[in-house]
Amino acid sequence: MTDERDRSKRPEQAMKKGLVIVNTGHGKGKTTAALGVLLRAWGRGMRCCVVQFIKHTRGNWGEVRAAQRLGIEWHKMGDGFTWRSREMDETVAKARHGWALAQEKICSGQYDLVVLDEFTYPLKYGWLDTREVVTWLQAYKPQMLHLVITGRDAPPEMVDFADLVTEMREVKHPYGKGIRAQPGIEF
Amino acid sequence: MTDERDRSKRPEQAMKKGLVIVNTGHGKGKTTAALGVLLRAWGRGMRCCVVQFIKHTRGNWGEVRAAQRLGIEWHKMGDGFTWRSREMDETVAKARHGWALAQEKICSGQYDLVVLDEFTYPLKYGWLDTREVVTWLQAYKPQMLHLVITGRDAPPEMVDFADLVTEMREVKHPYGKGIRAQPGIEF
Repeated sequence: MTDERDRSKRPEQAMKKGLVIVNTGHGKGKTTAALGVLLRAWGRGMRCCVVQFIKHTRGNWGEVRAAQRLGIEWHKMGDGFTWRSREMDETVAKARHGWALAQEKICSGQYDLVVLDEFTYPLKYGWLDTREVVTWLQAYKPQMLHLVITGRDAPPEMVDFADLVTEMREVKHPYGKGIRAQPGIEF
Repeated sequence: MTDERDRSKRPEQAMKKGLVIVNTGHGKGKTTAALGVLLRAWGRGMRCCVVQFIKHTRGNWGEVRAAQRLGIEWHKMGDGFTWRSREMDETVAKARHGWALAQEKICSGQYDLVVLDEFTYPLKYGWLDTREVVTWLQAYKPQMLHLVITGRDAPPEMVDFADLVTEMREVKHPYGKGIRAQPGIEF
């Protein structure tokens, strides 16, 4: 609806460009909505790639299996949430390695959509410098490439840079009721 | 993270059940996150069905094509947003027809996941009675069936009934900047 309303206001200004989309907030649905964008893009024959910066606690087999079956490129970088552990150097190194791979994919010209899943964490914890990341993206992200970034607490610089930012807010959560995470639905 | 924390607290209470998930709010990502759940479920070989209550303004070809290619059942019921038009009777009739189909699918035992896309609108506009819908779901939704409902302004009775409710809140939207909706990303 927003769509119809705003487009009718200023159609002459409408332009095509690759969107930078950020799904943030503490609720569910950040990675899930990125998967939805992937599915939609795949449905249109777009070339997609996922770089995953944090290993999901429950493994995310559902989406990885699905991506494999669809032929979507999927790179698991990064650890679980190990920043409290002694392996910080390794965690930081993995994040940087993930970003180097992401940079390669982003500027390769071989994709229409790149998803950086849980990418806000390396930024939030300072494993990567947000300003450097944004500056690099401004310089090297191809104009038509769509980029989706997920994770809690997106840094303000990333929000400023993005075209579309959605906060997923938790209204009600089943774990409080003793219901466990369900395979195929949440991972 | 919430996941790990809460599960470790009371693992003995954890139980398996089909989740009722509501994606609401005025931001993007409600239908998109439902698509992500579909993809995840499909990746695990679950049997999925979508009943779409409002025709998306931009057609949603990306997701319909993708669903077809995956062999996911997808029913387009309902009009566009026509409640301001004179065709109200037809709109109401389509919503009721959609709900009858949804009921058939939900209680058939043939699915692991049913998505009722944009289902909050028939409830919000009173084309269907929310209390009757919830009462029916309480009585007839199979225990293990996962149900995903999307749309703005989910009625309080539906929120009460749901296990997991997420509000998608718009932080920043590209149409304000004169960028048009992008095929493969938003529809």
